[in-house]
Order: sequence, then C-alpha cells, then structure tokens
Amino acid sequence: MFKEISQVLLQSQNVVILPHSSADGDCLGSAYALKLMLLQLGKTAVVLTDEDNPKICSLLFGAEEERPVVPDLAIAVDCGDLDRLGGRKGVFTSAPVTVNIDHHPTNTGFAAHNHVDSGEAATGQIIFELLEYMGLFLTKEIAADLYIAIASDTGRFSYSSVTPKTLTIAARLLEAGIDHVGINEVLFEKNPMSKILLMRDALNAFETYLDGKIALVSITREQVIASGANEEDAGGLILLPRSLETAVVAVSLRESVNKPLVKVSLRSNTVDVSGIARTFGGGGHVRASGCTIDGSIEAAKETLLAEIKKVMGCTE
Amino acid sequence: MFKEISQVLLQSQNVVILPHSSADGDCLGSAYALKLMLLQLGKTAVVLTDEDNPKICSLLFGAEEERPVVPDLAIAVDCGDLDRLGGRKGVFTSAPVTVNIDHHPTNTGFAAHNHVDSGEAATGQIIFELLEYMGLFLTKEIAADLYIAIASDTGRFSYSSVTPKTLTIAARLLEAGIDHVGINEVLFEKNPMSKILLMRDALNAFETYLDGKIALVSITREQVIASGANEEDAGGLILLPRSLETAVVAVSLRESVNKPLVKVSLRSNTVDVSGIARTFGGGGHVRASGCTIDGSIEAAKETLLAEIKKVMGCTE
Repeated sequence: MFKEISQVLLQSQNVVILPHSSADGDCLGSAYALKLMLLQLGKTAVVLTDEDNPKICSLLFGAEEERPVVPDLAIAVDCGDLDRLGGRKGVFTSAPVTVNIDHHPTNTGFAAHNHVDSGEAATGQIIFELLEYMGLFLTKEIAADLYIAIASDTGRFSYSSVTPKTLTIAARLLEAGIDHVGINEVLFEKNPMSKILLMRDALNAFETYLDGKIALVSITREQVIASGANEEDAGGLILLPRSLETAVVAVSLRESVNKPLVKVSLRSNTVDVSGIARTFGGGGHVRASGCTIDGSIEAAKETLLAEIKKVMGCTE
Repeated sequence: MFKEISQVLLQSQNVVILPHSSADGDCLGSAYALKLMLLQLGKTAVVLTDEDNPKICSLLFGAEEERPVVPDLAIAVDCGDLDRLGGRKGVFTSAPVTVNIDHHPTNTGFAAHNHVDSGEAATGQIIFELLEYMGLFLTKEIAADLYIAIASDTGRFSYSSVTPKTLTIAARLLEAGIDHVGINEVLFEKNPMSKILLMRDALNAFETYLDGKIALVSITREQVIASGANEEDAGGLILLPRSLETAVVAVSLRESVNKPLVKVSLRSNTVDVSGIARTFGGGGHVRASGCTIDGSIEAAKETLLAEIKKVMGCTE
C-alpha cells in the first residue's frame, strides 16, 4: 500500500513538502512529521508554507530551521487539488518527481505518485502508517506533530471520521511521551483575553428566532476594536450560537473593521447553508459556509434572516 | 487484581449500585455499565441516585427500569468517601456486603472490599478492566456507558490522567459500535438556553487578579433563578475562567439557590487546589477541587482570593 510512496522517498535526496494554503493543524502537523521522518532517513527536507499559523506553529517540532533546497521531489500534503497550493503551485509542478498524500475524498490525483485515502480521519493518520511501513522510529517530536494533526482534524477525536484505528494510533503517540495536555490546551482550550471579551459581547447580543431554531450573535466594529481581537478570535464566535441545543441554523454577524460590510458565518446540521451563502455571493460547505454583506449590521441581519426563514420554509 | 471484587460480585444476587451525589458522567456511566454487567451475570441490579442528571441520563443505557431490591451487596462507584453518598449513606452501610470502586486518590477505603486505583483516568476505565477480567461481553450499550464515563472524566481525552491505556480502551469502545459523535455533542457541544444565559452572566462578571494569573467568575442566586439553569449548567462555568490563557488558578463562585452559602470550583495546572478547597472544608483533586463557603458571595470571594494568593506566594 505504501510501497510506491516509500520507494519514491528513499530514491529522493532533496525534498520540499507543501501543506495547503490557509494551513491548519492536520496539514502542518503532517508536513513537519514527514520532514522529521525524511531527516531520519538522511535526506534534506524543507516545509514551504504560504502563510504562518502562529498558534499551531508554536506547538510543532521540526519547524526550527528551513534551508532552501533545489528539490528532486515535491510532496503535497493534505491538499485536495493543485490550486490549494496557492503561490507555491509552480514549486510543485516544476519538481522532477511529485507525490500527493491526502485524505480528502475530492482529491484530484494531481501528482505523479498519489496516495489518497478518504477513509482516514486525518492525513496525519496516513503519515503515521507510512512511518510504520518504512520502519522509522517514532520519536517524541514526530509523535507530537502527528497528534496535533489528528486531534485538529477530528475535533479532538469527536467527529464521525474517527475510527478505532484513530484512537489506537493516538495511544501509540502518547506512548512516545508527548505532552498531549499542552497540545490540547493550545489547540482547544485557551483563549486570550480579547477572545473572552468578544465572547461576552456576542453572548450579550445572543438572539433566537423561530422558537430557537435560529440562533444568532452579532458583533459591532467598535466591539472588535475594543476587544483587541484578531481574525482567528473573531472567527470562532459561530460556536456560541451553534452550541444552542435547539438551533437548526446558527449565524454570526461581524462588522469589518476597515470596510462598510458585515462578515457572516453560517452553520447547520440539516439545512444547506452553502445555498444561503451563495445568495449573498459567498460559499462553502453544506454545513458550514460564509459570505459578506454590504451595509450596516442591522440591515444585513434583516435580509439574512428573511433568506434563512425562506429556506427553512417559514414565511412569518 | 480484580479477584476479590469479582468473587464478591459472583456471590451476590441483589445488588444496589450507588454513584456519588451530584452525579457526573463518570459515576453514572460506570454505575449503569456495572448494572448491565451484573444483569449479564443473571443478577438483579439497580442504580440508586440522589438526583437526576437529565443530560447524561438521556445518553445512558440501562437506566430504563429500576425496581427496588433488598440488597445483599451495595457498591459505591466513583465515590471518595461515605458522605458523598448523601441521603443514601444508610442504604450502603446497612447492606451485608459492601464494595467501593473508585479512582480518587483521597478515597477513604470505606467498604469491606475496596478497589481504588488513582492511576486510572476514570472509574469507567476500572469498570472496563473488570469486565475484561470477568470475561463479560462488551455490548454496544455497556461500551456507550463506559465511553460517557471516560470521555466525561478526561475532558474528551485531554487531561494529564489520560494514558495510552485510556485511548486503547476508547478504541475498543468504538469497535463495539457506539455513537461517539452523538455522545460528544450532548456531553460537550450542545447547551440549553439556560446555560447560555448563565455563561453570559458569568462573562459579564469575569474578573482577573495578579495580572491575569487568577481568573474568576461569580454568579448570584438571582441570576441562577432567572436563567432557569440547573446544577449541571451551573457547574460547567468553571471552564470560562479556566480558558484564559494567562490563568494559573481558575475560580467560579455561585450562590446556592436554597441556602446562604456559596459553591466554589477551583482549577489549576500547577497549584494544588485541593489544599485550598480543604482549607474551606472541601476536597477533590490536585488540579480540580471544590468547596462551599457560608455567607455572601462578596465575603466568600474575599477570603478565597486571600487564600489563593497565599498559596501562590503572593501577599499583596
């Protein structure tokens, strides 16, 4: 199963590893674990990202030094298609040999050598199995990177993608002596004061419609500025209306600090919110989508609620 | 290791199982799993609780019918001392044979037969091992109850108490076909409106001391009543101060609805908060403890903060 990929790795010398753009825990954890595995094999390996992810990078091992290489092998990690490599697309396509390791079911198989398994809960799980196949040593550092990958992409082992294998691998990673408490704290539990202030403001503006079937929070420009929150802090607010047990559709509205527009996030387990987002020029997944609406937060709320109620079949 | 306990179980016929008061996921999941194991052995078994826990009970298997028995065996589950049985203390002490299965390090060994292992992340983990030792069949129902127990008491596998064994057991529970997604949603993701209102009140009363090293929320009797929150809703508020990234000690204070006293929860990753709780007649774990303080919330806050600062070595 890993025969082809492992042979390609063994035959390479200078490897560039490319996580997808808007790098998350799974692609970064997988990429740095793979880098450390290649170093163990005596290869030169670098991870090339489009942007930093300060929170996750603070946890990762293997990110310390990155020397540029002229690669004889490029590996895309956790990346469904070439466009998700963003500005690094050319680095990938110009490499003499290319590998694509991923678990997205929509993966286009864009490399010379593709290992795509949509049955795996995280790309980190595939990297672990590759390590085992190749007989490499599971260091504490590799184990930590893989734990970050798998915990991130499974919402701390809670998603439907989690199988007994996921938890068995997690047990092996803990055996390697990782600090799973510290990792979980940073990934899931700790907030800066700015986020707590923003959560407070959002809860003070918590609203429900249709007997709690729609839950909504809204945050003004002034509140964002006063809290000192960044995009990441603000983006997580959708979890508050989503947590209401009666909510079918959850909405967060947030005024942009710089422009006269409102950023909208939508979540639902049953309603196709990507359709609602598209109505306003946005997009996303069936269960998680977003859009921006010009104008005031009050006007945005009104038009958005009318559209949501229409989609939900309520015309009151 | 389980020889003594398993012999006692086999020799019994009518068993009453007693979770601790203010029943949580670990004691209830463990109790109902143990009940189902005893039914598998052809025994009569009932779980007797001091109070309902509607959220967790909605998930549990084995809670459907409870017929009163005259017990020849009483088993306390996840219960550190006799007083934590509350009004059911007499049921326990009057039984001809008594068993105590627990993982709290402070357990007083109050039964005729004690199995206390503080190295276990949850009492549910002990019950799983007992099931294996006795060669009982891991049904989907028992597995769900044990998953509820272990996930509850480990903050979804994130605490320091989690070992490779915990995750290996969780893998076995998933193999039994449980709905881990549904369990995690109810346990960790969904809130009633009452809880959201109480979170709002707690965040509006969010305070920090010692440059954010102490984070504190407080909730008045009137707020608890206005929100319609139950004990369980209110108990989770400690997560808010605990989430502040600078917090070394997290505190929640909550006025009792019925009595002139304040319920206190304490959390820390570095300070022994069980010592602080004991100062006020409470107890618990090194990292998670609680107590009650007579009087007003303002007075309780003042004396508690003085004690915390003393323990932290700050006398300002």
